[in-house]
Amino acid sequence: MTGLREYLDGPYKSARDVVRAGLAAHADLLDAGLRLPRDEYRDQVLEKLRLIAADGHPSRGFRKEYGGQADLGGFIAGFEALAFGDLSLMVKAGVQFGLFAGAILHLGTTQHHDEYLSDAIEGRLLGCFAMTETGHGSNVQALGTTATYDEQTGEFVIHTPTPGARKDYIGNAARHGTLAAVFAQLVVGGESHGVHCLLVPIRDADGDPMPGVTISDCGPKLGLNGVDNGRLVFDQVRVPRTALLDRYAQVDAEGTYRSEIENPDRRFFTMLGTLVQGRVSVGGAAINASKVALTIAIRYADQRRQFGAPGSSEETLLLDYRMHQRRLLPLLAKTYALHFAQAELVDEFVRVFGNDADEHDRRALEAQAAGTKAVGTWHATETIQVCREACGGAGYLAENRLAALKADTDVFTTFEGDNTVLLQLVAKGLLTGYRESFGKLDPLGTARFIAAQAVEIAVEKTALRAMIERLRDAVPNRSDVADPDAGLRDDGYHDGMLRFREEHMLAGVARRLKAGIDAGDEPFEVFNRCQDHVIAAGRAHVDRVVLEAFSAAVQAAPEGEPRDRLKELYDLHALATIEADRAWYIEHGRLSGPRSKAITALVNELCALVRPHAGGLVDAFGVPGAAVDVPMVVPSQHE
Amino acid sequence: MTGLREYLDGPYKSARDVVRAGLAAHADLLDAGLRLPRDEYRDQVLEKLRLIAADGHPSRGFRKEYGGQADLGGFIAGFEALAFGDLSLMVKAGVQFGLFAGAILHLGTTQHHDEYLSDAIEGRLLGCFAMTETGHGSNVQALGTTATYDEQTGEFVIHTPTPGARKDYIGNAARHGTLAAVFAQLVVGGESHGVHCLLVPIRDADGDPMPGVTISDCGPKLGLNGVDNGRLVFDQVRVPRTALLDRYAQVDAEGTYRSEIENPDRRFFTMLGTLVQGRVSVGGAAINASKVALTIAIRYADQRRQFGAPGSSEETLLLDYRMHQRRLLPLLAKTYALHFAQAELVDEFVRVFGNDADEHDRRALEAQAAGTKAVGTWHATETIQVCREACGGAGYLAENRLAALKADTDVFTTFEGDNTVLLQLVAKGLLTGYRESFGKLDPLGTARFIAAQAVEIAVEKTALRAMIERLRDAVPNRSDVADPDAGLRDDGYHDGMLRFREEHMLAGVARRLKAGIDAGDEPFEVFNRCQDHVIAAGRAHVDRVVLEAFSAAVQAAPEGEPRDRLKELYDLHALATIEADRAWYIEHGRLSGPRSKAITALVNELCALVRPHAGGLVDAFGVPGAAVDVPMVVPSQHE
Repeated sequence: MTGLREYLDGPYKSARDVVRAGLAAHADLLDAGLRLPRDEYRDQVLEKLRLIAADGHPSRGFRKEYGGQADLGGFIAGFEALAFGDLSLMVKAGVQFGLFAGAILHLGTTQHHDEYLSDAIEGRLLGCFAMTETGHGSNVQALGTTATYDEQTGEFVIHTPTPGARKDYIGNAARHGTLAAVFAQLVVGGESHGVHCLLVPIRDADGDPMPGVTISDCGPKLGLNGVDNGRLVFDQVRVPRTALLDRYAQVDAEGTYRSEIENPDRRFFTMLGTLVQGRVSVGGAAINASKVALTIAIRYADQRRQFGAPGSSEETLLLDYRMHQRRLLPLLAKTYALHFAQAELVDEFVRVFGNDADEHDRRALEAQAAGTKAVGTWHATETIQVCREACGGAGYLAENRLAALKADTDVFTTFEGDNTVLLQLVAKGLLTGYRESFGKLDPLGTARFIAAQAVEIAVEKTALRAMIERLRDAVPNRSDVADPDAGLRDDGYHDGMLRFREEHMLAGVARRLKAGIDAGDEPFEVFNRCQDHVIAAGRAHVDRVVLEAFSAAVQAAPEGEPRDRLKELYDLHALATIEADRAWYIEHGRLSGPRSKAITALVNELCALVRPHAGGLVDAFGVPGAAVDVPMVVPSQHE
Repeated sequence: MTGLREYLDGPYKSARDVVRAGLAAHADLLDAGLRLPRDEYRDQVLEKLRLIAADGHPSRGFRKEYGGQADLGGFIAGFEALAFGDLSLMVKAGVQFGLFAGAILHLGTTQHHDEYLSDAIEGRLLGCFAMTETGHGSNVQALGTTATYDEQTGEFVIHTPTPGARKDYIGNAARHGTLAAVFAQLVVGGESHGVHCLLVPIRDADGDPMPGVTISDCGPKLGLNGVDNGRLVFDQVRVPRTALLDRYAQVDAEGTYRSEIENPDRRFFTMLGTLVQGRVSVGGAAINASKVALTIAIRYADQRRQFGAPGSSEETLLLDYRMHQRRLLPLLAKTYALHFAQAELVDEFVRVFGNDADEHDRRALEAQAAGTKAVGTWHATETIQVCREACGGAGYLAENRLAALKADTDVFTTFEGDNTVLLQLVAKGLLTGYRESFGKLDPLGTARFIAAQAVEIAVEKTALRAMIERLRDAVPNRSDVADPDAGLRDDGYHDGMLRFREEHMLAGVARRLKAGIDAGDEPFEVFNRCQDHVIAAGRAHVDRVVLEAFSAAVQAAPEGEPRDRLKELYDLHALATIEADRAWYIEHGRLSGPRSKAITALVNELCALVRPHAGGLVDAFGVPGAAVDVPMVVPSQHE
């Protein structure tokens, strides 16, 4: 399909191609997890990690003085492309180059950069990102590990005070890491200043745990068994004062704590916000993993025959069955939509981190990253599941790769932020206009903040009510229109529908919160009663953003085949999205029964329209052959 | 929760308890898949298989003269209980005692029974059920393997004529099986008589492949790695004439083929129909696997705290969050519903196989088994996925068992019949009144049959139109009722809604098929155009049957706590089912917008009502401790 692949690859084509070439050259990793015992698989992954470091991929994201190329967008795009290959390698690279080196880069200062960055980027210094604890995953502010300043010796004492404060699920910890970026409650002069990050050596040069550090292995996992996740317990471990990553807060030798950000919550969320790259990357990786699964399942469905018309010499191709089209093709369309939404997110990420963006922009970026991550990773789970089932028993065999894709990606909905929590964060950001307290995950604080201080402002500021009125006019209720099919493929229709839904849901949440608080109910209870509504509103927002990104990408596509094909996919995606929520639209008077049925019929028609191009549309993803040339797919039949 | 567990266990309590005790005694198998190399794991599974044979579980299903107890219901219930433990053992037991021994029992005659059954039941003779081929899974009638009678020698020659005719995914083939029940096109005197089953030795006493038999290993799979799935290729393998399982068709020494069933299609589906037990069993196993996952996830959510009201000394339990309730509790309710639907199916299975039921009853049973299997296995996939996500990172660790549950059960939606194909079969049975051609999976044949001969009859016979009219009266359209909440928990309301949906959808399919054929369109195209509609109709039927089974079980439950709790769960299940399809009900004028919203609100309320009992409700499943006492759940907190 001329030009489509180039258009999808976009400005970071060369970064993607470097990683693609690397995956093709090191394709033996793809079945290493099946061939090797766990520790050998982990060591293989480490070996490949060093090879991709040598290929120059990870250095892209860092400044030139540390051997980098200062190309953040290419860095993310290359990371996403790693998801075309073994996902343990992708995750280990994410831990090493993204989380660990990223924490040093964003939370540390020049001394840390000079001392560690080159070694980290080149894979000589292997590190961990030790944030999550057994007792606290989502609620990072409540971590139990302490870092207490001892002014006698000028050291911090890192300690695990309770079993729940054990660092858990830490990538690179069980086998390879030597230095950990540890998140702990910083205590100076008897006063706690909240969570900060410090660099703590966990292994010596021989690979043995450092004194006071107890390391254990999380053992086998559902997937990603090439990543050595482990647990860390600290028993009064001493590190020098300079171990504190001190970009946002400093402790001087005398034990005086200083921060340019006075409000502790704001300081915490500012520090956390610099780590948004992880969420951006995981969302992109999930979308690319979906492309791998769809490439396999659609090629299979375009070759595999079963049943058919008697008298016909051949049985029917699976992809010619309506139900099979219905299962796979809307997911294909949504994968395209998410691809473009992710590209837009990466552009915004580059802009915000490249310039001195203001706090509002940063918070908005964090919400966009959270939303894309949640929707992209749930999409991957769903898509890979459907692809597995669509390939029947063959899809269950490890040799056909869907098994590994399914197992390895499953945790994406959990790590880098639980999706449910992330969608709440999206909705809260919208309700508060991304003001300071936005990042606060604690539902009580948010409920009180929103309800007691901000609902009226939020509702008035974004002029929700007025906007809804305008939308009501812009999107006529077609209940009484004679032709329920009219305008279903008009550009403005889809966006108007999704925008109406988003705004209506947000306004509804705001009103319910305010009413509850006004009635004197406990803020936690008020918030909890609307929790499903809050999360649905967050999702409605992301759906709309994704749709608009796809729409813009269609407009900007090269004329001719790329744009024509993308328009068909866009229509399929838009209408399938409305169809999925049609109950809501009908309940809220935006859709009549006959028009709703017309949408379902049109989704079927669009599936049939896309079907002849399905093979070309997955080819355009540019997944390297090694990742998708599986025994159940005869290679000669596609290119 | 006094009495509820006993009520759930029902008449087959002792059969279930024998298996529960066995699982507890052999709990070391539960992590064997993590500890051992694949072949050792497989051998461990075989060892346990022989232990359960010694416990007497498999013999329950067979006649006393072969060491059995002639207790079909207890046999199935015990098999279902195996799903509380390692699922490789469950599947291997299903292959050995269900499929292999079942084929001999149902398709063979006394000579075969006498020669093989005792050894098979006691695990001395290990067998395969060699039906599926690389090229044909769902379309069994098109299998490629041939069994050609050679009247010179009085033997059948078993042969694999093409690569696609290779037997594939065959359990017990890669390592342990010595005798295979092989499905092949029977050719006698140059004439093909369709698919029949023959017993073919595949390994000699030393475990080496028999001459002409090539055995290979399917290799690692997404799950069930304790089952040795393999591939069989036959090169002119000779077996005696008596190898034919000849209950429904015989070949005499002179090469004369005889069958009491003249119509080849009818013969084929009669033979296949005797194997319905596999589907009955897999559906039950899937439902029980869901119970294991829910037990783990609900206990975890009832202990795990995250976030909470500042000022409060403790964070909030996950299960107190509305969203968490919304994710888990409707699945808990549906698991109860499916439990009772499965119990009803087993009763019907016992009745049909115990008496000389007529063909209509058999066909209806097959459809009921197909539907329960499809809905039960999809439910397991969804439930286990939600449970994994609800347990976050801890859910991803193998030690917490959700990983194995997810991986092992994933193929249930595919094997013993692809779910999509099975729901088509359900719908076709309803449309044709379970007449002869019902079993025919080929869409063209069905379309022609239904459309050209039966639509009018079907529509008139079941008086669909009249029934719809009656239902329209029985279930008033509440659009114009002032109080949209009225009657939502009334018993008759839910059933009326689901029945209306089923009948309306079936009538719609029948009309569309007839209209297409009347217009002169190709029958295949006509059928394919409605395929999503056909499958939705099948599902609507199963939903209604499941709901009615649950309703009957509530009525029959002991008064007091069991019945009260079940009534709450029933209401939650019924309303969540209607809510999930509310778009359809609104589109078809059976639900107003306000009433639809009232249902959503009531589902939330019912979740809150069920929540305090959630722990007791999973305890009542009676999953053995070894299967659910995982590190992330503190054992002291439940009983």
